[in-house]
Amino acid sequence: MATDTIGKRIGILGGGQLGKMLCQAGSRLGLMLSVMDKDHTFPAYSVCPNFTMGDITSYEDVMAFGSNADILTIEIEKVNIEALEALEREGKEVYPRPSSLRIITDKGKQKIFYEGAGFPTSDFVLYKSKDEIINDVEQGTLKMPFVQKLRTEGYDGRGVHVVKTDDDMVALLEGASVVEDLIDVDKEFAVIVARSVSGEMAAYPVVEMQFHPMANLVEFLFSPSTIPSAKQIEASQLAIQLAEKLEMVGLLAVEMFLDKSGKIWINEVAPRPHNSGHHTIEACAISQYEMHLRALLDWPLGSTEQLRYAVMVNLLGAEGHNGAAEYQGLREIMAMSEVYLHIYGKKETKPFRKMGHVTITGSSLEEAIAKAHQVQNTLKVISS
Amino acid sequence: MATDTIGKRIGILGGGQLGKMLCQAGSRLGLMLSVMDKDHTFPAYSVCPNFTMGDITSYEDVMAFGSNADILTIEIEKVNIEALEALEREGKEVYPRPSSLRIITDKGKQKIFYEGAGFPTSDFVLYKSKDEIINDVEQGTLKMPFVQKLRTEGYDGRGVHVVKTDDDMVALLEGASVVEDLIDVDKEFAVIVARSVSGEMAAYPVVEMQFHPMANLVEFLFSPSTIPSAKQIEASQLAIQLAEKLEMVGLLAVEMFLDKSGKIWINEVAPRPHNSGHHTIEACAISQYEMHLRALLDWPLGSTEQLRYAVMVNLLGAEGHNGAAEYQGLREIMAMSEVYLHIYGKKETKPFRKMGHVTITGSSLEEAIAKAHQVQNTLKVISS
Repeated sequence: MATDTIGKRIGILGGGQLGKMLCQAGSRLGLMLSVMDKDHTFPAYSVCPNFTMGDITSYEDVMAFGSNADILTIEIEKVNIEALEALEREGKEVYPRPSSLRIITDKGKQKIFYEGAGFPTSDFVLYKSKDEIINDVEQGTLKMPFVQKLRTEGYDGRGVHVVKTDDDMVALLEGASVVEDLIDVDKEFAVIVARSVSGEMAAYPVVEMQFHPMANLVEFLFSPSTIPSAKQIEASQLAIQLAEKLEMVGLLAVEMFLDKSGKIWINEVAPRPHNSGHHTIEACAISQYEMHLRALLDWPLGSTEQLRYAVMVNLLGAEGHNGAAEYQGLREIMAMSEVYLHIYGKKETKPFRKMGHVTITGSSLEEAIAKAHQVQNTLKVISS
Repeated sequence: MATDTIGKRIGILGGGQLGKMLCQAGSRLGLMLSVMDKDHTFPAYSVCPNFTMGDITSYEDVMAFGSNADILTIEIEKVNIEALEALEREGKEVYPRPSSLRIITDKGKQKIFYEGAGFPTSDFVLYKSKDEIINDVEQGTLKMPFVQKLRTEGYDGRGVHVVKTDDDMVALLEGASVVEDLIDVDKEFAVIVARSVSGEMAAYPVVEMQFHPMANLVEFLFSPSTIPSAKQIEASQLAIQLAEKLEMVGLLAVEMFLDKSGKIWINEVAPRPHNSGHHTIEACAISQYEMHLRALLDWPLGSTEQLRYAVMVNLLGAEGHNGAAEYQGLREIMAMSEVYLHIYGKKETKPFRKMGHVTITGSSLEEAIAKAHQVQNTLKVISS
């Protein structure tokens, strides 16, 4: 009986915008959701009275929070995995599974996993420190160009450094890292797949990304992608196989590259709702947020069908602005049709901080992209 | 600057499902919403931490709640209007205006207003008590069939009594009432219009209703209506004129009849989001809930365009079931495509109580209606 399922208490670690949107999806279904994060300034608090103040990286706080939930999930990977492992041993349902999280939260382990399982990933070497990298470059055993990624501290484009020339060597990151071949990228795209407790799977249409040149954040994405359909099918199959191999429960967002020779490479994955799936709220039959919850509850996943063409624009804090957030150009974009504004409710803006997003839909991709440019030229997050 | 507008604190009187959905729409836009209602079992609490426990019919409670808001609005008409009038005098923005509410909350005044302003409404007589009605029937000055409506206590089909034969006379309602001619109804439909502070107006496509034969509640609606397009235009124009005459700010839902001779009659109005507009969440460019908030904030209203055919099914408590709510058939309907489940989160079910709704969309009306029948045959709210 479905009744039992609605009664399950779902605890979400992390109260950022992804947590907020999970709560919004869950509240429509009448689910019992709770959230833990540091304080009430976090976006999810505004939609979740069942909010516990606590540190999601603290063993004690996660254990305490978990004791009041039947199912635990995350909206950010940087959580206390030891606590999640302990909760799983106690019989709580923890999704993604801590064993999957162990792999995904360490970019070194991720690469070893891809290689071992035969997924296409660029060649790599693991390093303990930046001195080792400098040494290998001096010895000639490591050749430019390459990409350095910190194994555990990367998020939202942070912790990634591209080295093309000697000048880039000074900015090498300190800490254990993966150094991988720089792929000659033609396109960047992502596939979000869902896998339920009992193993049902669903994949969203491929979304294609454009990155902000300075912040290394997704600035703009559109869906469905325009890469050749054979490549889209290949990408979806890879994402599905990856989610199975990782024994995922919930969403897995798989970021991939298409190189200039037409080969697909797996870049990295996120075991949760993802920035590249925001548009599913308005453009797809079921949003990624609802899909994640369905997967955790072992409900039928339903349809990932995309009903409208969509573009998603991240609303980033403007450069040179720090402080209380103000939104310029709001009225102008409110007058546009099929332009869906999401303001996360963060009080303070800073350059490139994700303050919201706008999804633009249309009956053609061209129409949606044209409106997206207009939105980007109009809407700014500044400080007062 | 739009900044000032986002900063306005909007207080909602009433924490039912309409309040909940207003909060859901507002939270996406990052608005500062608060809600007042009796206790935390009310649906809106689950999405609004800024929830004040209080009695919306109490002068003191409404005054106290209003002191912490810049704009006051309602999700149910049965509120303390004296307090809203006092708050308006203090300079608060109160929408709908108390003067509009005074007319709308008294079905006698509503009828007088329609008649005075020349809107098509059935002939009527005002009565102070049921004895007066009995007397007029005995005297032969009041002839069956007629409809008796309590002037102030009606809601969701309650407070309405149809008298066709002598047998119906025993169930006449006690209290001041309007007695009006029974219209020979061919179709029932509604038009939801919005009017902003500065007078911008927008109308949603006409929705057509089917009533539950026993509960006198909307059981099923579909949009757009299939009544002749000339009639739809006439209905929209009537609704717009009515909202202007009433000096509405926010939404006005206008329920109308089409009689068998093809004439349109205004039945009654609601100055707030309405059951007949639930489908706008998934089927229209902008939902009625967001539209209401835009109107209060004097933002551009944007588009009311309907992007998919839609059917809305109220999810009512099953007959014979009282107690803790359980949802039967949930998994089956979750597997259907474009079927959007809204569970309000009320703990207790009782016969015909509105426990949720389901919006079904499709690329044709026939497709959506067929799925709606399937939903109605599958999904039940029972008690454990």
